[in-house]
Amino acid sequence: MHFKWPLLATLRGYDRDQAGGDLLAALLVCLLLVPQALAYAQLAGLPAVVGLSASILPLLAYALLGGSPGVAQALGPVAILALMTAAALAPVAAVGSAAYVAAAGLLTLLVGLSLLLMSLLRLGVLANFLSHPVISGFVSGAAILIAASQLKHLLGVQAAGVTLPQLLPALLAQLPAVQGPSLGLGVASLLLLLLLRHLARFGVPVRLAARLRQFSALLLVILASLLVALWPLAGVAVVGQVAAGLPPFGLPPLDWRLLRELLPAALLIALVGFVESVSIAQSLATRKRQSINPDRELLGLGAANLAAACSGGMPVAASFSRSALALHGSVATPLVGLFAAVLMLAAVLGLAPLLRYLPQAALAASIMVAVLGLLDLQALRRTWRYSRQDGAAQVATLVAVLLLGVETGIVLGVGLSLLLFLWRTSRPHIALVGQVPGSQHFRNVERYQVVQSPSVLSLRVDESLYFPNARYLEERIGELIATRPLVRHLVLMCPGVNLIDASALDSLEAIAERLLSAGVQLHLSEVKGPVMDQLKRSDFLGCFGGQVFVSQYEALRALDPASVAQAAGHPA
Amino acid sequence: MHFKWPLLATLRGYDRDQAGGDLLAALLVCLLLVPQALAYAQLAGLPAVVGLSASILPLLAYALLGGSPGVAQALGPVAILALMTAAALAPVAAVGSAAYVAAAGLLTLLVGLSLLLMSLLRLGVLANFLSHPVISGFVSGAAILIAASQLKHLLGVQAAGVTLPQLLPALLAQLPAVQGPSLGLGVASLLLLLLLRHLARFGVPVRLAARLRQFSALLLVILASLLVALWPLAGVAVVGQVAAGLPPFGLPPLDWRLLRELLPAALLIALVGFVESVSIAQSLATRKRQSINPDRELLGLGAANLAAACSGGMPVAASFSRSALALHGSVATPLVGLFAAVLMLAAVLGLAPLLRYLPQAALAASIMVAVLGLLDLQALRRTWRYSRQDGAAQVATLVAVLLLGVETGIVLGVGLSLLLFLWRTSRPHIALVGQVPGSQHFRNVERYQVVQSPSVLSLRVDESLYFPNARYLEERIGELIATRPLVRHLVLMCPGVNLIDASALDSLEAIAERLLSAGVQLHLSEVKGPVMDQLKRSDFLGCFGGQVFVSQYEALRALDPASVAQAAGHPA
Repeated sequence: MHFKWPLLATLRGYDRDQAGGDLLAALLVCLLLVPQALAYAQLAGLPAVVGLSASILPLLAYALLGGSPGVAQALGPVAILALMTAAALAPVAAVGSAAYVAAAGLLTLLVGLSLLLMSLLRLGVLANFLSHPVISGFVSGAAILIAASQLKHLLGVQAAGVTLPQLLPALLAQLPAVQGPSLGLGVASLLLLLLLRHLARFGVPVRLAARLRQFSALLLVILASLLVALWPLAGVAVVGQVAAGLPPFGLPPLDWRLLRELLPAALLIALVGFVESVSIAQSLATRKRQSINPDRELLGLGAANLAAACSGGMPVAASFSRSALALHGSVATPLVGLFAAVLMLAAVLGLAPLLRYLPQAALAASIMVAVLGLLDLQALRRTWRYSRQDGAAQVATLVAVLLLGVETGIVLGVGLSLLLFLWRTSRPHIALVGQVPGSQHFRNVERYQVVQSPSVLSLRVDESLYFPNARYLEERIGELIATRPLVRHLVLMCPGVNLIDASALDSLEAIAERLLSAGVQLHLSEVKGPVMDQLKRSDFLGCFGGQVFVSQYEALRALDPASVAQAAGHPA
Repeated sequence: MHFKWPLLATLRGYDRDQAGGDLLAALLVCLLLVPQALAYAQLAGLPAVVGLSASILPLLAYALLGGSPGVAQALGPVAILALMTAAALAPVAAVGSAAYVAAAGLLTLLVGLSLLLMSLLRLGVLANFLSHPVISGFVSGAAILIAASQLKHLLGVQAAGVTLPQLLPALLAQLPAVQGPSLGLGVASLLLLLLLRHLARFGVPVRLAARLRQFSALLLVILASLLVALWPLAGVAVVGQVAAGLPPFGLPPLDWRLLRELLPAALLIALVGFVESVSIAQSLATRKRQSINPDRELLGLGAANLAAACSGGMPVAASFSRSALALHGSVATPLVGLFAAVLMLAAVLGLAPLLRYLPQAALAASIMVAVLGLLDLQALRRTWRYSRQDGAAQVATLVAVLLLGVETGIVLGVGLSLLLFLWRTSRPHIALVGQVPGSQHFRNVERYQVVQSPSVLSLRVDESLYFPNARYLEERIGELIATRPLVRHLVLMCPGVNLIDASALDSLEAIAERLLSAGVQLHLSEVKGPVMDQLKRSDFLGCFGGQVFVSQYEALRALDPASVAQAAGHPA
């Protein structure tokens, strides 16, 4: 594999201006990343330090191996993967236990290995299984689940569950135990965040309002921590003291049974993380007239997750919200990841002692407001109006995520969209055609005044012939022949057939043989060059008994000259 | 649902000639069915009576509800479903136990319900997931597994297993215990069957040879039973005494845990049985210039399996070998199933006492020779030569069936063929086109001498735009723009686009927006009517900022008149 080392290209001619730009961008990244890392660790049910350490080595790994400066900046814990992590770990260990943290490391390892394997096997194509309506329904459902899962921190109670039918009753049962101070702080945090989102309405200059909005989570974290530090509130749960320093570097303890159990979830997390990251990379690249290499993105993302796994971490990907920086800022080079990693390390070491003042309710509020942006119910209406099938897939995915959980939801969504796709593909457009009088053209008999031969059936196939539609072709031809006792020849016109796969070849052979028993000979016309070459590698052309005509006109001239004469005698 | 009752139509005007024909056909069916029912019950690990009773009520049920006279005649236990039944039941109960028989009934019930559900939801399309190479690889693998599973009866030993790595070592370990008489009888049976297959070579008249070959299993069963009855051989295992009469009619005992466990296997059995039966129905219908209704076949087959479940049975489908009767005989009406059911009932009551003379080794030999016909290794070479991808799917399915079992094998095969299909579909043909000098036509720049505008990029898409290729479109356009700094307009020419789904619409919106940031305006041309109608149901046309041109020529005339003038000035 020819490998272009992006960092070397960057370092050649790297100057002070670029370094300054990278450093500023890295600083902004860290200011966004710190509160998000804390929040998403809480969302995943992991200690705060796991979120922070998942924001150091992965940035470094991607800076070394990844290709997109946009992703380099937006990498780290993200809300949806955190939710999927919580869902994957819930059945295997108790939240807060050492086994839970170890399982998170193992899950991250599997995610990294899956991504690397996909990169090696060039399986980026797997992401195509996720249609946009499925992704959109999945993200909206996940946003609702995320918000619901954080209600317990807002209320200051305990409630476990990975689906709405588990979470809501658990919360309702805990209502009598609600902690007033937590709730007060949480509601105040929500109000502050909502206020910061709409500052421009209150006369704050637009640019300042935008900046304050962007860093509202950081402001909230600082204010809430200050409040708790200065005025200790009984009953307010805090993130708590973090052991000094970072978690030890090294692979998580291997447990084969657990590995097997976590594998399906890891594959889904890898796929979702890849889709999110590659969309960001694509989006930023096209704007700058650059192109991306999906296999390269898989490699970078895989390395980042392996790095996360080795530092006791959680799965990472590029985040849409953090990619906004790259979109509107003036990012220079992938080195920004390197700077950000160093800054994050400093932040972690400096911040750890302060976390005992940070209230969980404030983090929960920041998560809830952040995922509001992911919830796009308008998209449901838009998709439904555009296409019933896509709309159905979207709604089904959303509902399944809420009721059955993220994993089942996305698997059902993918299955449904594949099924709908197959259904669509399995009924290609097959038109009965006739000759346009006075010309050599053949057109659909339902839409044009054309001459049809009584003994020669002309059928145009507007789709490649492959296994999803092979059976339909057999059925359709069977129906057509059943109602036309005079027919002696059937000519399949193939100008739109780009491929005939082995299934369709079998079907053609079966059709030819059955037609023969019914006294009808099959022929082909207007077969494309590559398709013809492939047919020559089979016995079909020798066995089917018919001819392959250059054009439908030639076919009719050979098989039913009277009909051609009739068409010529009646000019349009 | 408008329901045509086929039997009523048949009965109207039913006369003595037809009845005579049906009766003869029914008799032939029974002569084939009795030895096969005994053999496939043995293959499934079930008592002989289960196979026999699965050949009575199902025939009746299909005669009442099904549509195809060919299937009506070929219905009953089949080899592959018997193997799949054995594989499904192996993990849940011990062969020969009452629980095993009960589980078989439950499995059959689930198969019937799955088929009925597929019929109601019109999910016959599910069969399209099984491409021909996957089916062919699956059938060949299953044939080898079936033959291997019968070796133990030939050798007169015990050996369990549902994959080759389980079966072969078990057989090897039992070699010292081989029963000479069983082996002798088995080998003699094999030789007799092989001899009967090639009688024509020895001067026997062709028609007689064909008949003897067709009923060779029956001949063998009679001869072997006579032999054992007249000359009792110690150590020859026999099918044994059957309790007088039939198993009681009624639903198998319901067990929810077991139901859930058997469901995946039941779905696969339903799908495979449906594919086999519908192929037979299709094959016979087209020859007679009739057409079939797949949902109707699902209904008939589902009812047949429910009937089998209620009489303590095993899953049933139409068998290719028995359909030969319908193909070459003179079948009249679906009533043949009714006659056959009555004859089978008489046969079961009359034959039961004689089964204590029927040696298992002879049945094993008949199974092994029968499945030889299913083994088509030539097909592997043919498929591989025709298409590497299809060949790979076929080999992978065959190997997976042998090593991992029938269920895992078919699931892997389906997964692989879907993946290859997706891979193929995800890279549609997208051609850069230019104007043919002196004409208004646009052709691929790589194959024609054409005029290209420096500022307007003309791109022709030869495929519908949907989720498997939406991402590819984004990447491809990103690449094209990245290398052409002068381009200001991109016109997507859509004469081959039959559909734009919600995913592709999102991609088009993203492409338009990103291109705009890169200083390029997106336009469309030659959009088909139905696609245009659907686009109007979205905001795309209002938002993307470009125009929709009737033709590529109009687009170029509006966007770069100089290039059009250049093309006109250089006539071909």
